[in-house]
Amino acid sequence: MSGSSLASWNDGTSKRSILDFIRRVTTAGSPGFVPAPERIAVFDNDGTLWCEQPVIQLAHIMQRWQEMARQDPALRDQQPWKAAVDKDMTWFRTAITEHYGGDESDMPTLAKGVLSAFEGLTTEEFATSVAAFFRTESHPSLKRLYRDCGYAPMVELLRLLDAHGFTNYIVSGGGRDFIRQIAGDIYGIPPERVVGTSTVLAFRAQGDGGDLLMQAKLDVFDDGAAKPARLWSRIGMRPLLAAGNSNGDIPMLQFANQPPRLALRLLVLHDDATREFDYTSGAEKALALAKQYGWTVVSMRNDWKTVFASHPETIFTRDRETDYGDETVQGRHQA
Amino acid sequence: MSGSSLASWNDGTSKRSILDFIRRVTTAGSPGFVPAPERIAVFDNDGTLWCEQPVIQLAHIMQRWQEMARQDPALRDQQPWKAAVDKDMTWFRTAITEHYGGDESDMPTLAKGVLSAFEGLTTEEFATSVAAFFRTESHPSLKRLYRDCGYAPMVELLRLLDAHGFTNYIVSGGGRDFIRQIAGDIYGIPPERVVGTSTVLAFRAQGDGGDLLMQAKLDVFDDGAAKPARLWSRIGMRPLLAAGNSNGDIPMLQFANQPPRLALRLLVLHDDATREFDYTSGAEKALALAKQYGWTVVSMRNDWKTVFASHPETIFTRDRETDYGDETVQGRHQA
Repeated sequence: MSGSSLASWNDGTSKRSILDFIRRVTTAGSPGFVPAPERIAVFDNDGTLWCEQPVIQLAHIMQRWQEMARQDPALRDQQPWKAAVDKDMTWFRTAITEHYGGDESDMPTLAKGVLSAFEGLTTEEFATSVAAFFRTESHPSLKRLYRDCGYAPMVELLRLLDAHGFTNYIVSGGGRDFIRQIAGDIYGIPPERVVGTSTVLAFRAQGDGGDLLMQAKLDVFDDGAAKPARLWSRIGMRPLLAAGNSNGDIPMLQFANQPPRLALRLLVLHDDATREFDYTSGAEKALALAKQYGWTVVSMRNDWKTVFASHPETIFTRDRETDYGDETVQGRHQA
Repeated sequence: MSGSSLASWNDGTSKRSILDFIRRVTTAGSPGFVPAPERIAVFDNDGTLWCEQPVIQLAHIMQRWQEMARQDPALRDQQPWKAAVDKDMTWFRTAITEHYGGDESDMPTLAKGVLSAFEGLTTEEFATSVAAFFRTESHPSLKRLYRDCGYAPMVELLRLLDAHGFTNYIVSGGGRDFIRQIAGDIYGIPPERVVGTSTVLAFRAQGDGGDLLMQAKLDVFDDGAAKPARLWSRIGMRPLLAAGNSNGDIPMLQFANQPPRLALRLLVLHDDATREFDYTSGAEKALALAKQYGWTVVSMRNDWKTVFASHPETIFTRDRETDYGDETVQGRHQA
């Protein structure tokens, strides 16, 4: 296992923990050996694989709310349409931070807006909308395309795990069908390995065929205790490695522990105001448990040489030019 | 594509439809060509891949009900424990046949018994119970181990599809975590490709770890319109081939139709009282749609040379002896 395989990581405890763990579970004959089909690695997405300040999916929903408010001006006086039209990010950030801290006061309003935004679209129409969003939209302060907001060191880790017989999954509080449109390009993770929050889908039969229509009703909010349950639903196994960054990832990290098997738990700590952001809000309990039980805390400031790939070529990509055409190349050069 | 790859199938319209379809979607440059990642094939399980008279999972649950009634004699006067103790299969068969016909009068009683049977077990404890069941239990009239009740022609079809770049999934009204324990051995389908009915799982954190506990509450009854929604939830794609045998499979078969792409819809017709069973109850609407839209109806009597494998070696198996040890070999020789 070449050290250069985690080239964007500084030498230190985190990098050594990861490399040591991979070596122990993949070395045949070693007491920690785990057969390849059981080498399941699960990753939270927002704040773990890409940045979450602000939550990227929100930008896609805001586009839609602005469009809805143009069509129906009465919506401009109601949240969350009002905040979308006014580009009032503070309202959204507060609602989400409150949620992770246990205060759900703004969550019903936000949830209602989120759920009704795409009501009645087919799953294919929604996918088309998301794909168009990722072709053009950029992060407001990082000044890079959203699809270039993945953390280079985490993408390297995904590739390293993949090369060592692991199967990588995303288990996210974000939207399953949203992340599926981009997870292949950024992370090399195919749609069937993306688990996330979902709305109810209703089947509408039409003659010899039929469609699934998005309903304005929550199916599963894939956070907290829902994460291990949804992972089990998907694969019928526990993970061997689990990575997250907030309190909502705690049960998933606990679920990876199945003695006497080894387990690696990673918690990404956002402590880099210069290159990304510096916050622990909503991660307090997770950080306390990490300290108590020796989970590996990954400091963005200290453990990562780079946060985002300066050369997009280094990001794991699957026929990216083919997918996006010339626009992509141009967009990347500007970023 | 050698004709011998479907050696248990008689030459006829069904076999020709299947082989022709596979040839068209896998031949590069052909107008019907579909890239391998999109070659998704979904199969109902009960009555499509193995026999459903009686429903095999019911035998496992009955074992449990008998055990519960031994521990609490008051249960002997209540359904479904009473029917389990009396081995009254008619009561169960009627409830299920009624359900497929649209009459739900016995379903709440049956569902309550099913849901409470394994309440409080961890997912791993349930898996252990199911694995033990499949090691020893046999079909009452077919006189073969339940794990040898897979249809040999359908297993051949799964292998043929697998050899042609398809990815096979089970989407069943039966229990997801039940089928997962046997789908690898019989069908070569790994746990992560089994979708089915599920109970709510509750996460119980304990220190640095935690377990998922089965609750006496239905999560999803994976039948009818739930089937396409659950498949989308799992993989984010439509199937290219869908196979079923009852009215509950109609939406899944409709969902496979995505013009201008080709689609193959298979409906297994139980018309073989000599070698298996003869019934169309609960399949009336599906058979009418098959006739109306030209879906391929597979007649067990006319299309299949054999129903069950006379030599278990011909069944697709993954380290079967390794999994089950000497008991298995002995069991198979007796079967």
